[in-house]
Amino acid sequence: MRFFDHNATTPLFPVARDVWLDVNESHWLNPSSSYRSGAAVHARLEDARRRLAGLLEVDPDRVIFNSGATEGNNTVFAHWAHVFTQNAFVGISPTEHPSVIEAAKFYFRERLVWLALDRHGAVDLSAVNFEELSALSVMAANNETGLLNPWSELAEACRANGIPFHCDASQWIGKMSLNGLGKCDFLTGCAHKFGGPKGTGFLVAPESMSGGLRGGAQEHGRRAGTEDVAGILAMITALELAEEKRIVCMEDLKQAFWTKLKQALPDTANNAPVAPSLWNTLSVVLPEFTSPRWIRALEKRGFYISAGSACSTGKSGPSHVLAAMQLEPSRAGRTLRISSGWETSQQDWDDLLAAILESYDMLRSEAKGSSSQVISI
Amino acid sequence: MRFFDHNATTPLFPVARDVWLDVNESHWLNPSSSYRSGAAVHARLEDARRRLAGLLEVDPDRVIFNSGATEGNNTVFAHWAHVFTQNAFVGISPTEHPSVIEAAKFYFRERLVWLALDRHGAVDLSAVNFEELSALSVMAANNETGLLNPWSELAEACRANGIPFHCDASQWIGKMSLNGLGKCDFLTGCAHKFGGPKGTGFLVAPESMSGGLRGGAQEHGRRAGTEDVAGILAMITALELAEEKRIVCMEDLKQAFWTKLKQALPDTANNAPVAPSLWNTLSVVLPEFTSPRWIRALEKRGFYISAGSACSTGKSGPSHVLAAMQLEPSRAGRTLRISSGWETSQQDWDDLLAAILESYDMLRSEAKGSSSQVISI
Repeated sequence: MRFFDHNATTPLFPVARDVWLDVNESHWLNPSSSYRSGAAVHARLEDARRRLAGLLEVDPDRVIFNSGATEGNNTVFAHWAHVFTQNAFVGISPTEHPSVIEAAKFYFRERLVWLALDRHGAVDLSAVNFEELSALSVMAANNETGLLNPWSELAEACRANGIPFHCDASQWIGKMSLNGLGKCDFLTGCAHKFGGPKGTGFLVAPESMSGGLRGGAQEHGRRAGTEDVAGILAMITALELAEEKRIVCMEDLKQAFWTKLKQALPDTANNAPVAPSLWNTLSVVLPEFTSPRWIRALEKRGFYISAGSACSTGKSGPSHVLAAMQLEPSRAGRTLRISSGWETSQQDWDDLLAAILESYDMLRSEAKGSSSQVISI
Repeated sequence: MRFFDHNATTPLFPVARDVWLDVNESHWLNPSSSYRSGAAVHARLEDARRRLAGLLEVDPDRVIFNSGATEGNNTVFAHWAHVFTQNAFVGISPTEHPSVIEAAKFYFRERLVWLALDRHGAVDLSAVNFEELSALSVMAANNETGLLNPWSELAEACRANGIPFHCDASQWIGKMSLNGLGKCDFLTGCAHKFGGPKGTGFLVAPESMSGGLRGGAQEHGRRAGTEDVAGILAMITALELAEEKRIVCMEDLKQAFWTKLKQALPDTANNAPVAPSLWNTLSVVLPEFTSPRWIRALEKRGFYISAGSACSTGKSGPSHVLAAMQLEPSRAGRTLRISSGWETSQQDWDDLLAAILESYDMLRSEAKGSSSQVISI
């Protein structure tokens, strides 16, 4: 099977798995234990924190380990709801991940400001009215389209306006440079998006932040619960490896694929044709047939590809991301999200192109067959 | 090393590790993916849910997988705070885990009723005034003393009074029979307390419950976030094994140890001498020297033992559990929590006794040495 759904999840890097095994074999004590061997496990945890802080160029005290991006995003809004007045408004992009949108709606209800998008679908920096906002939350890179938001400029503008900025960087981290992310006041990361284990993530936050799980003194009292040191060390190991691998990843492969696909099927459209986007992500509208039919046809040919966010599965209606980008529902319904990985080769992309063309032929001949069958009856 | 701190955490069962590896090797797709192979992973997740529901004799729709007991306990109080009126009072035991106490304080502040304890330190059922309460949260077994609460009777009394009952059964599950736990409206479980991986747990809750992480439709929309299927399947496998192992575990070993310790050191006291307690847990007050000195002395002799909850490490002052039981601070400060496991043998207990006696000799001779040194100066 060829995996073109890295934005949904990634396979665990073997080195991350080995670290997980080693911790569970030899360093599985509770890091809060008061004997010295427990303290040694705690030292490994703090080493992981320093390594992550080093990659992000932040103070280690700002790093909070948690169960993943959904927890991180929920925590930020819970915190803001707790510290802001009842009149505070918070700005978010309409293309955010459901864990931002649903948390924001729950905690702020009608006190949300939906940021305007530019014509490409990224947040329009020039349209943000900072004066009406108490905080801003904008993702670094969109999970469905790969579109990049001007998070760096937003972080700076928020700082200039004296309001905190949260960036859900779940899809950015591991694929793009970490450079500058530390200037976001709040930053969400998620291990299983970059070759780490599921159920592990982190939130970078000001040291004054509350809002996480309450209970023990773990994570400086900001996220209670016995730390999953195995998962945390596996995550850091995966991120360090992803950082090495992403440097050799080429936007060119994706662009070459798109050019060939467009030549072969001129009625195909690219949902992010010119705007900056993740090197691995392509959101395309196919000429005919709904996404589920394409997904099944491609799976039969050995390719895993999705229509959009796995976290949106089970929700009715078209993608809220594509809707916010003004894409007609009929076109959104024919969209595939193709997301490659660090190991995806030129050959994989070429084979995918062949599989799409084959699938199209098959879907058309099936359609003809069923329509001629109807006529013959 | 001999491990007598199973209430802090447990080593991962090898079968649970193997399941974790298998899922990460062969079934690591996002279970919310729309291709069939993703649905196959989802089927494994639902199988895990049915297996757990079967063990607990509850409807599978009541089972929510999460990151552990701290999340489960926080979620219950967040839910109650959301659905109850501003005048609702909630009852909790003063001996609850910090993740119950801190969550309860955060969400209910002065609207908490601290339940009375009987003379043994368990919640006094007869003293509960159900009429003043909108809900009740009482742990099944105490993590520091092993004392059992009358959770079954409390669950029934709550039902009779029409109010929900939450039971943090983190220390009970895997050690005691699961029989009847399903009648608790809310039930917290934690994998790493019974040989499963850290960072994984579950909450059994009414189907109407909200209050968990918001975002995607995972866990029927009641706990968003990509499911850690590897961790969840490893947890269920561990629980099934713990259920087999606990049946052969004997209260006798602990009692025989206590009898011999009391004979050897008559000034030793048992914090739960006659009341029902976990078969693996013994909370003892030693005649002299503070807990940290005992812990270090025993670690040097190859034993991991703690003073109390690992989740309380880093908090100042004596144990809130022992304080609630009216234990003098000086006695609380000399307390060791000894918690054995499924594999702890008679020999391990005998060796522990010898190590305690040796440690006592050493600590006394050190004390004499330093005092005589002081005198000689």
